[in-house]
Amino acid sequence: MALFLLLLLLLPLFFIPSLAHSLPILFPRAPQSLLANLSESNKYPNLPYTAHYFPQQLDHFSYQPKSYTIFYQKYLINSTFWKRGEPIFVYTGNEGDIEWFAANTGFMMDIAPKFRALLVFIEHRYYGTSKPFGEKSYESADKLGYLNSAQALADYAVLIRSLKQNMSSESSPVVVFGGSYGGMLAAWFRLKYPQIAIGALASSAPILQFDDITPWSSFYDAVSQDYKDESINCFEVIKKGWDELMRLSSIKNGLSELSTTFRTCKNLHSVYQARDWLWEAFVYTAMVDYPTKANFMKPLPANPVQKMCGIIDGFPPEVDILTKVFSAASLYYNYSGSQSCFNIGYEADTHGLGGWNWQACTEMVMPMTCSNKSMFPPSAYDYEEFGDQCERTYGVRPRLHWITTEYGGYNIKQVLSRFGSNIIFSNGMKDPWSRGGVLENLSSSIVALVTAKGAHHVDFRSATEEDPTWLIEQRTLEVEIIRSWIDKYREDEMI
Amino acid sequence: MALFLLLLLLLPLFFIPSLAHSLPILFPRAPQSLLANLSESNKYPNLPYTAHYFPQQLDHFSYQPKSYTIFYQKYLINSTFWKRGEPIFVYTGNEGDIEWFAANTGFMMDIAPKFRALLVFIEHRYYGTSKPFGEKSYESADKLGYLNSAQALADYAVLIRSLKQNMSSESSPVVVFGGSYGGMLAAWFRLKYPQIAIGALASSAPILQFDDITPWSSFYDAVSQDYKDESINCFEVIKKGWDELMRLSSIKNGLSELSTTFRTCKNLHSVYQARDWLWEAFVYTAMVDYPTKANFMKPLPANPVQKMCGIIDGFPPEVDILTKVFSAASLYYNYSGSQSCFNIGYEADTHGLGGWNWQACTEMVMPMTCSNKSMFPPSAYDYEEFGDQCERTYGVRPRLHWITTEYGGYNIKQVLSRFGSNIIFSNGMKDPWSRGGVLENLSSSIVALVTAKGAHHVDFRSATEEDPTWLIEQRTLEVEIIRSWIDKYREDEMI
Repeated sequence: MALFLLLLLLLPLFFIPSLAHSLPILFPRAPQSLLANLSESNKYPNLPYTAHYFPQQLDHFSYQPKSYTIFYQKYLINSTFWKRGEPIFVYTGNEGDIEWFAANTGFMMDIAPKFRALLVFIEHRYYGTSKPFGEKSYESADKLGYLNSAQALADYAVLIRSLKQNMSSESSPVVVFGGSYGGMLAAWFRLKYPQIAIGALASSAPILQFDDITPWSSFYDAVSQDYKDESINCFEVIKKGWDELMRLSSIKNGLSELSTTFRTCKNLHSVYQARDWLWEAFVYTAMVDYPTKANFMKPLPANPVQKMCGIIDGFPPEVDILTKVFSAASLYYNYSGSQSCFNIGYEADTHGLGGWNWQACTEMVMPMTCSNKSMFPPSAYDYEEFGDQCERTYGVRPRLHWITTEYGGYNIKQVLSRFGSNIIFSNGMKDPWSRGGVLENLSSSIVALVTAKGAHHVDFRSATEEDPTWLIEQRTLEVEIIRSWIDKYREDEMI
Repeated sequence: MALFLLLLLLLPLFFIPSLAHSLPILFPRAPQSLLANLSESNKYPNLPYTAHYFPQQLDHFSYQPKSYTIFYQKYLINSTFWKRGEPIFVYTGNEGDIEWFAANTGFMMDIAPKFRALLVFIEHRYYGTSKPFGEKSYESADKLGYLNSAQALADYAVLIRSLKQNMSSESSPVVVFGGSYGGMLAAWFRLKYPQIAIGALASSAPILQFDDITPWSSFYDAVSQDYKDESINCFEVIKKGWDELMRLSSIKNGLSELSTTFRTCKNLHSVYQARDWLWEAFVYTAMVDYPTKANFMKPLPANPVQKMCGIIDGFPPEVDILTKVFSAASLYYNYSGSQSCFNIGYEADTHGLGGWNWQACTEMVMPMTCSNKSMFPPSAYDYEEFGDQCERTYGVRPRLHWITTEYGGYNIKQVLSRFGSNIIFSNGMKDPWSRGGVLENLSSSIVALVTAKGAHHVDFRSATEEDPTWLIEQRTLEVEIIRSWIDKYREDEMI
């Protein structure tokens, strides 16, 4: 049941707010056996990294005897191109197995030789194998309580400092990299720990998606715009699909008919299973609408939104709407063509993302609504209701405004125009998360790189022969800027 | 037993390291009844502030159900000169009753009319009446664990943000002020929460007194230099006093003789009581060697180090050394002349400072030694031994390098020359803590104001008619710089 295994990269928690009250609020955990397998399996046998484990303190911000509990935090290293004293590039891991991010951040490996850089990917606490209480880590708020962004940043600070000492390379400049939630962490790390990282490349980091800084409807409006830009018909077919789904749910044999149309392995027991399955497909595909074929969430061809709309538009008008939207969504779930039926509502969490619900229910509160302009059913968002749901699930309420207190966000240009330095916020406007990102330069060295055709941290992917010019240029610019940070750092060392 | 009620303003924990192993390690707590009295009494009836209490969260950095426990944090307000929208000046309280700091930071009141500023003094958690577990707050590491700098900074952030909302004055620029440990907090607050404070005036803030950034002997060398600068004889008499004390301890009736010389109310039971009593007098007097009469630690005349040395030098050479040093120390303990005998070793903690030992034993680890150049007996410092003592006392070990990980300190000029803005580090070179302070400009807007004749945050004291020109000029410059921050903030608002 992957439906509510929602993560930042995927969808905001309770992502269909208007219907939230009618949905059972489920936070299914991946089966323990699966988690165990995930922890031990090597799904990326060709990753050019060695795994290491750092003894990390459970609680950096209190001093109870139990705060000193040690857990082992995984990190990956590649030192092929490194020479002592040369830069260290650190990926500040986000909500999943660190190998998954390493596999999807080939950019760092691509540029390592240019800088003779050491590459380090640090897994975020409570994800992958870095679980303080092993398989019991998600058991209760008492155990989950230490899963939050401030503790994660402190982990990175402690680990990086120790690593530099152990490698006798304390003068190495450190640059942090992160995408999505990892990009937020990279930017915040530079702001909170300038003594440890000289700069940050934060790709697709929606640090302004909190409180009411960004309009709540912007995320789904942006998703919708992606489809509308491909074809008005495509947009309208999808938009009409939701009503059609609801209509089916109210008629005799509707669910059975739907199960047939959607080629489900088991009969659907709720129309919402189908709705969420479609929803996920359309949103994720917009996020990963890359110009080349890729396999981030799922294997997909180049320009998958265009392909989906091609499928919809390719049907004669008289074909029923749900067949059209199902076929489009199938591209997302079955591009390889290997699936003869779909486990709708029962998909496994294959990236170790199970802790995100907790984070979304405590501090990572990003309100979202669907406006009339979107292709989704209009929906509202209610803090109180959201808080009640979280309390029922975890026994604690969200701290609704903590992120903007701790990290800022309001008036960000005014605050950072004269404070801080060396951050790149890169965003692609096809990525709906871009709307909560920093899209204009804040100062001469806190800059925004925005591409019209980019999707979710596309700049972090390995270079390919098919890469369009705008993407090559974006990466070149990033390298130049990082180079300038390191050059200035070297100059300042002489002072 | 106030001897080991050591605080930042006073003396580093275990401040006589060479003898630490021979001393019983005592962390006496003020009697509960006294704490209760302190909490309720109003020792500063004429303070122009009203007291308020903010519901503060116990643990900002974890989400266990108990993290949400609320305690009431005291803060003081004066709005005499304020107009909505105009600046808010916040004192980031340090390790004691907030009234004590308010009474000794008249500077803020002096300048409030110029800025039409609201004045806010926030009490540091676990001090004064802001104790999360009331009188049981110091009972164990489980309760004390939340007493640390990161939680304190977060308290300030949450309180200030809420206050601005409640006062409908969210566009008011906030400037933070702090002296000593409060100065560290002010500087760190600007660095960690630039979205909340536009600048910080950090007076006598030894943010470089950690790890091995500053030579470990510099503090006591600086104290000694203060006395040497007044008179070589004074310095040498004090220096010889320690041996003389130890000699007495080894002869028959030595303690009894010493008790007579030192006019103790009760017979001394250890020569160390007398030693620590002297030590405290010489160190504190150097710290508060103000150019005007003042009552910070104790009531003292203007230039008290000069006065002490005048007492020592005024004796004929043949008078015995301990009589001389006792007479000098008496200036510190009995300037008013009201005491007919001294409760050596039994002084009460009248400023509510009892939590500092915990902080010194967990994160505020500032190693100190006495060199041959000083007027104190030479001593070493050993991390391991210190850690053992802390563990025996509190059940937890210090995190020796946490402060420099969390807040930096190494290569501070390189780190902050291109990061951050709007901090004044003011220091007076008579203050031994100045040696761990920032004594040179780090950038065009992170600046050092250093006075040769200043003592511990003298600039924060109320202006008096006797103030020397250098002090008047220092304060004028501080006002000008703060004015420039506010002007730029207003300009940037227009963007």
